Amino acid sequence: MNKAVFYHAGCPVCVNAESRITELVDRGRYNVEIVHLGEQRGRIAEAESAGVKSVPALVLGSDVLHINFGASMADVKG
Amino acid sequence: MNKAVFYHAGCPVCVNAESRITELVDRGRYNVEIVHLGEQRGRIAEAESAGVKSVPALVLGSDVLHINFGASMADVKG
Repeated sequence: MNKAVFYHAGCPVCVNAESRITELVDRGRYNVEIVHLGEQRGRIAEAESAGVKSVPALVLGSDVLHINFGASMADVKG
Repeated sequence: MNKAVFYHAGCPVCVNAESRITELVDRGRYNVEIVHLGEQRGRIAEAESAGVKSVPALVLGSDVLHINFGASMADVKG
């Protein structure tokens, strides 16, 4: 099973992207973890080190897919 | 079967996003059409009317997921 992590911050753009990505993904092959960085602030550093520049973003192995634009990581960090 | 259209312009960002999206998608539920707007210039207007502002982008029903940033539609149109 491949692992993917979807990082978001609860914004409307994030919520829409989350619903589209979760619909789209082949759940037989991918396990998608959803991380709300506003609520799980301890994971902001992990997201940044994976290359996340803005949310919503989906991390797949070494690649980051930034999906539309909800907020920058600077905004998320407040 | 749901339909999704992935618009790109052959750029490196596009190629990487295409391979990730095609890996990720549940092919049992989604039929993904890949459109290279540099080669199929007649479809630029269709992409714009679907809301595509930059490539690569994935159109799913009424939603557009802009995935990372390869080129603006102005660049694609030249």
